[in-house]
Amino acid sequence: MTEHIDHTLRGRWTPTAAPLPPHAVKLLRDRTGLGDVRTPARAPHVPPSALDDAARAALAAVVGPGHVRVDRDSRLGRAGGLSYVDLLRQRGDGDLAVPDAVVLPASPEQVVAVLEACVEHDVAVVPFGGGTSVVGGVTADRGDKAAVVALDLARLDRLVEVDPVSRVAVLQAGLTAPKADRLLAAHGLTLGHVPQSYERATIGGFAATRSAGQASTGYGRFEDMVEGVRLATPVGEWRLGGAPASAAGPDLRRLVVGSEGAFGVITEVALRVRPRPAVERYEGFVVDGWDRGTTAVRAMAQRRVAADVTRLSDVDETDVSLALAGGWKIGALKAYLRARGVRRPCLLVLGWHGASEAEVRRRRAETLRGAELVPLGRALGEAWRHGRFRGPRQRDALMEVGVCVETLETATHWSKLAELRAAVRDALVDALGRCVVMCHVSHVYETGASLYFTVLAARDAADPIGQWQVAKAAASEAIAGLGTISHHHAVGSDHAPYLEAEVGALGVGVLAAVKRALDPTGVLNPGKLIAGDFHPAGLASPGDR
Amino acid sequence: MTEHIDHTLRGRWTPTAAPLPPHAVKLLRDRTGLGDVRTPARAPHVPPSALDDAARAALAAVVGPGHVRVDRDSRLGRAGGLSYVDLLRQRGDGDLAVPDAVVLPASPEQVVAVLEACVEHDVAVVPFGGGTSVVGGVTADRGDKAAVVALDLARLDRLVEVDPVSRVAVLQAGLTAPKADRLLAAHGLTLGHVPQSYERATIGGFAATRSAGQASTGYGRFEDMVEGVRLATPVGEWRLGGAPASAAGPDLRRLVVGSEGAFGVITEVALRVRPRPAVERYEGFVVDGWDRGTTAVRAMAQRRVAADVTRLSDVDETDVSLALAGGWKIGALKAYLRARGVRRPCLLVLGWHGASEAEVRRRRAETLRGAELVPLGRALGEAWRHGRFRGPRQRDALMEVGVCVETLETATHWSKLAELRAAVRDALVDALGRCVVMCHVSHVYETGASLYFTVLAARDAADPIGQWQVAKAAASEAIAGLGTISHHHAVGSDHAPYLEAEVGALGVGVLAAVKRALDPTGVLNPGKLIAGDFHPAGLASPGDR
Repeated sequence: MTEHIDHTLRGRWTPTAAPLPPHAVKLLRDRTGLGDVRTPARAPHVPPSALDDAARAALAAVVGPGHVRVDRDSRLGRAGGLSYVDLLRQRGDGDLAVPDAVVLPASPEQVVAVLEACVEHDVAVVPFGGGTSVVGGVTADRGDKAAVVALDLARLDRLVEVDPVSRVAVLQAGLTAPKADRLLAAHGLTLGHVPQSYERATIGGFAATRSAGQASTGYGRFEDMVEGVRLATPVGEWRLGGAPASAAGPDLRRLVVGSEGAFGVITEVALRVRPRPAVERYEGFVVDGWDRGTTAVRAMAQRRVAADVTRLSDVDETDVSLALAGGWKIGALKAYLRARGVRRPCLLVLGWHGASEAEVRRRRAETLRGAELVPLGRALGEAWRHGRFRGPRQRDALMEVGVCVETLETATHWSKLAELRAAVRDALVDALGRCVVMCHVSHVYETGASLYFTVLAARDAADPIGQWQVAKAAASEAIAGLGTISHHHAVGSDHAPYLEAEVGALGVGVLAAVKRALDPTGVLNPGKLIAGDFHPAGLASPGDR
Repeated sequence: MTEHIDHTLRGRWTPTAAPLPPHAVKLLRDRTGLGDVRTPARAPHVPPSALDDAARAALAAVVGPGHVRVDRDSRLGRAGGLSYVDLLRQRGDGDLAVPDAVVLPASPEQVVAVLEACVEHDVAVVPFGGGTSVVGGVTADRGDKAAVVALDLARLDRLVEVDPVSRVAVLQAGLTAPKADRLLAAHGLTLGHVPQSYERATIGGFAATRSAGQASTGYGRFEDMVEGVRLATPVGEWRLGGAPASAAGPDLRRLVVGSEGAFGVITEVALRVRPRPAVERYEGFVVDGWDRGTTAVRAMAQRRVAADVTRLSDVDETDVSLALAGGWKIGALKAYLRARGVRRPCLLVLGWHGASEAEVRRRRAETLRGAELVPLGRALGEAWRHGRFRGPRQRDALMEVGVCVETLETATHWSKLAELRAAVRDALVDALGRCVVMCHVSHVYETGASLYFTVLAARDAADPIGQWQVAKAAASEAIAGLGTISHHHAVGSDHAPYLEAEVGALGVGVLAAVKRALDPTGVLNPGKLIAGDFHPAGLASPGDR
């Protein structure tokens, strides 16, 4: 257990200094004007713990003294998530919010008792799983409380129950995705939930943030897998679920899923699971231009024969990906594509999972029927698969050489997809000047798709946080009205100011009403999901849109 | 427009006296002890309207005087839904709750203004679509208000917008399903939502009740189609939607869908639509025994190759269905089945929709791969299809001859399905004595299925309402803990007392908190969804389960 907890934390705030390959640095210099400056990390400031002795004793009485940690490393290990701004702060830029203690309960019952103690002692609680939030979802904000603790769920790491007939498994919230899959593999089962954060993210985090993974086109979004939830709240424990579908009032599970620790702490999740696929096949294709690419993947989704993994890069992302791949025979590839009349190559990776080669072959044929794609073969698909968790790790090296690197994502209906992509791209270029903006579709639905942007620019050494905040605000403004502020990264504190534009003042008011009901004193994850004061006396007046 | 409204109401409370075929009556006599007594309907008592002049004038100022109706026929036409108890009351048994007026707004804006007027004049509002609720969802309960009006949405009957690229259509709430499909057919599109109430039920009702239709295994439940909603509430209008998927906090659309008029009045719904199928193929099969039948349809669902319509009858329902079919050569059929070793025939109807014969053939082959079914051919499938909306109409004739006839439904995970079916069946037989209890699975999911029960007994002439209420309570108690209180009929007033057992005191408390936020004075659909007083000062104390 201890090993597991330490693993979760190792290297979180101390960047690993893996060097970038020289051709990648050259490409960044050429395209972003990046200079030749090393920007090593500095140790961030860690203030003394504000947790008073009475609160610490009360928490220790619940979880045991060894599981209330106030040492520097434990606190720094839960100081924020993995956004670019989080990384800057962890490297000594700006002010890093550090929790006053880390509390490690061992059971759902202990989580309830921890919340009771926090209410009594005026302590804010930030639920903490893998710490992979990129939207400020785990920032140690104390709000109006006397102190703030990180409630680390790492010890809630059991596979509680498996129902192989119904294909439902109950998993504890602190299980990382790889460990959950290992435990399920013993039963021949898998979650099929593979976000880029897979190696560190947890079951509770997936549920709290409405996660979507790289194979979600095939396996469904995490919320589609949730059969039941167990939530610890300051007013008691709440359990939901028990049927595959229901019309017994609104689906309250969907109110817990996506609640980001603001309504309670998810301690267990009952999930629909599937047999582990015997065969996984990934392939690369190229299509000529973004419009033809989105038309092709739209047809696959609307014919309901999409591959489990469907990932379409725009021209810029394709160009950079191929350039960075390095080992590839890029010249030969470009000639091959020119010979096939492809002027503006967009890379498409498709992946199918199945119980047999025959099933995968059959499904592949259905997906590809009528699509005008240039096949690049399985090696390129496998190359994507092997590198698919690399992104977050590469950021440490990029940070070292002075790059501003961040991602953001959205989703909209098919008819607005091109407009939304252009609007976000333009907003980012306007804000950042010389930069690389890459985009891909990673999730397709019958009615629309997600857009995932990666941005690379030369860091403004004088005000790196301000530089990105201006660009992020511009992108968020571009999204409002055209798409959702987040397709799978959640709201956190970064998107909270934009939520009202999406769900209306009544929507924010309803969320606040639910929070008041479940967390009357407001100890839970202050500043996340609901911006500012969540205790308005009432709702907007009649006539509100 | 006027034609449409009248059509909705004609014959609603005056049962049509279509005679039952003699062999059906004989079967009922043999199996339920039904006597030879005619029980003609009596005209129900209609009290004078309690709507005062000021309220009436305020409503008329919004919708026009001709659209505030207080005549007997209009009021009786919206007096309750279509449950067995509703039908008894409409036939003169017990007390019928009759709305004091019927208000017919013409636009979403008028609905908001009607709600404002009702708040000001202390008038309760029962949103009314097709009036097909079978759970007391449209009972004219005034709660603690001075009067109650039925807010009939029949004039909100427009197809507002079609996005053929994204396959999203915005439909107004008062559109009946057939009219919605006719409007969509002009664009080559369909909803694919076909519940037994299809002929009269409305878009708003489907959304408000989390409806599921006979083809929902293929097209998804109604909630799965909802891309966006427009809700009129006493504190203003609330709009949600705009992306196919999102992680921008909890999915608040799912809080509106299933809210049964208790949080607001749904005025428009943005729905995922599909191309009208060029080919529909229905077939009958038989499988030997319930366990083999559920194993077969479970395999189809878990392999994700289920037919769009998947409907498995138990032995009793199969037996009665074949006996009532009459025209069928039942003797020959039974010999055919015996020759194939089938001792306990369970009828399975499967239906596939597709763009071409080839697609349907391919999908059919996938569904049937490995399943041990005895084919009965397309005639039986088509017979089911042609009779699929007949059930509600046959009830009038059954009422006439003194039958107690009702349906109820639930859902659970596969591993509990047999236990749940037996428990409900036993509870009904214990409560009713000599009776026919039939059951079928009509919706299959990867993790479970629905169970739909039809009950026939000789009516207790002395206390027909009490007779059924005892049986319903016994069935509901049997369901609690094993399944959901409703898979697709919703909560209404009939299931409201059982909701806490399913979603916990915290769940009911959260629903009450949302209602307080959106409907602070409680004018909306009193007594539905949330049982009793919905204004508790707070939630259950800590330690609540």
